[in-house]
Amino acid sequence: MTGITIGIDMMGGDYAPDEAAQGIIRYLAKSDPALDLVLFGDEPALRTLLPANLLSSPHISIAHAPQVIGMHEHPLKALKEKSGSSIAVGYQWLAAGKTEAFISAGNTGAMLVAAMHSIGVIPGILRPAIGAVMPNAEGGAAILLDVGLNADSKPAHLDQFAMLGSLYARFMLGIQQPRTGLINVGEEEGKGNILCQATYPLLKNNPELNFIGNIEGRDIFSGRADVMVTDGFTGNIILKMAESVYGISAAKKISDAFFDRLNFEYYGGIPVLGVAKPVIIGHGISTAIAFNNMIGVAKKMIETGLPERIKNAFAAYPAA
Amino acid sequence: MTGITIGIDMMGGDYAPDEAAQGIIRYLAKSDPALDLVLFGDEPALRTLLPANLLSSPHISIAHAPQVIGMHEHPLKALKEKSGSSIAVGYQWLAAGKTEAFISAGNTGAMLVAAMHSIGVIPGILRPAIGAVMPNAEGGAAILLDVGLNADSKPAHLDQFAMLGSLYARFMLGIQQPRTGLINVGEEEGKGNILCQATYPLLKNNPELNFIGNIEGRDIFSGRADVMVTDGFTGNIILKMAESVYGISAAKKISDAFFDRLNFEYYGGIPVLGVAKPVIIGHGISTAIAFNNMIGVAKKMIETGLPERIKNAFAAYPAA
Repeated sequence: MTGITIGIDMMGGDYAPDEAAQGIIRYLAKSDPALDLVLFGDEPALRTLLPANLLSSPHISIAHAPQVIGMHEHPLKALKEKSGSSIAVGYQWLAAGKTEAFISAGNTGAMLVAAMHSIGVIPGILRPAIGAVMPNAEGGAAILLDVGLNADSKPAHLDQFAMLGSLYARFMLGIQQPRTGLINVGEEEGKGNILCQATYPLLKNNPELNFIGNIEGRDIFSGRADVMVTDGFTGNIILKMAESVYGISAAKKISDAFFDRLNFEYYGGIPVLGVAKPVIIGHGISTAIAFNNMIGVAKKMIETGLPERIKNAFAAYPAA
Repeated sequence: MTGITIGIDMMGGDYAPDEAAQGIIRYLAKSDPALDLVLFGDEPALRTLLPANLLSSPHISIAHAPQVIGMHEHPLKALKEKSGSSIAVGYQWLAAGKTEAFISAGNTGAMLVAAMHSIGVIPGILRPAIGAVMPNAEGGAAILLDVGLNADSKPAHLDQFAMLGSLYARFMLGIQQPRTGLINVGEEEGKGNILCQATYPLLKNNPELNFIGNIEGRDIFSGRADVMVTDGFTGNIILKMAESVYGISAAKKISDAFFDRLNFEYYGGIPVLGVAKPVIIGHGISTAIAFNNMIGVAKKMIETGLPERIKNAFAAYPAA
């Protein structure tokens, strides 16, 4: 054992468990010895999917979890009725410290509800958020949040999203003083909807942030900000619209570094920020590429100690 | 005189008056005899810009309006202090019936405030909206509204935006039963933020609409809806993000019919819907292409009698 152990839900997503298995094979082809993987799913099925060398590897173990929570099941109901599901068992291991991160491309609602109930929210966090790494046309990338967990957000939530995003940009994207922008419909202070008007002064006065002011829709891909803060409604529309631009460019066989990076699989998945341990939710249509990249992101979240850093930051600077 | 007379603010926009003049030259090169143009601006300056054949044309007249409302001036204050501005005089002519439509790439706020005060809002309309024609990857286009007039919208406003958009799609885009979608973060009824949850039943129960339910960020370019309804905050972010995608693809010299149509100049400008007469606001950076297309859109709004049709529809089906 190396100290880095990541749990993977093998039953989540439209292409489970095959693509999850292929993603693991892909990741391990880079032969990362500093990693142990625990695969949650139906053991007999998984044994037929993985090659003998992986099944006999001391770094791979299977935790039998034969039940599956479907993509459209009611999260709370499904979790109650399916205690043997890959998501439920995966979180049991994470909460018990037997794994250090958990990855799933399964039912997003179930992943979030289970996170709250098992590992819990970091003290001081009003609402966890989910973030998406968005590429820009300058070759860099920013973290956009919230992308859908909080359809209705309040100013204090956005202030916290800004802090969560800044910590992500700093430790995961390697940007020392992340430029943090508030997504709005005008540049000057005082512009925008009621939410943004009330949020602006909070961000401006938050000493933990390098706040650069409002940014607009045209700045999403411009590289102006490293952290793009918005409510979960707007963030989700932006994310899905960006994904669709990739889909269109791919269908047209446009080969370009920027449009290619709009492929959600490039960044792998969506980290849940504000919960006590690293959790990554993949797109329902994740393939091996996404699983491979999600393992890399989860590993980095463990190595950088991101949840602990978030905990310390929120202890030092509680909610506005 | 032919009965179709369009007023153009020659002093609005970053490239005024040159690009407005070039746009007119471009439009008239197609020699549309069924059109008279009134140009509002500094007469001596305009006389140096336009060729002799246009200046001597019975279809072109200049209304001297030497003052200019700058792009960043406070709308109400500027209108009060500059009664000789091209925007103020342009609306005086429109309100008096001496022109039938008004086009400007100038100060958006001033254009809207002046519209309310001069020609006024159609009875029953709670809030006018501005709409953007958005191309889709299937070769068609939809009207997206509101794109920025109402940063905070209420369910009844969105219901009216849906009606305004449907009428625009029907008479301007030629779509008989425009499929009207509510931009949201989930497909099923009951999903989304508080605004969308409350708006959904209004749209569903509005007999004037062909409501197809919620649409998501990935549907903006998919061609699923002909009318895409949203609040002015979300709509503005979507519009500017779409414009930036064009900017990126143009900078990369990607030549593609869809990405090319994301150029805002292709559709010319943003119609103001819900005011008593056709008004079109252009992008501040409009060039001749945009002015040329705005003239065409204004002409069609007059020919189809769009404001009158809106008036009749709202008289028959008042606010929810």
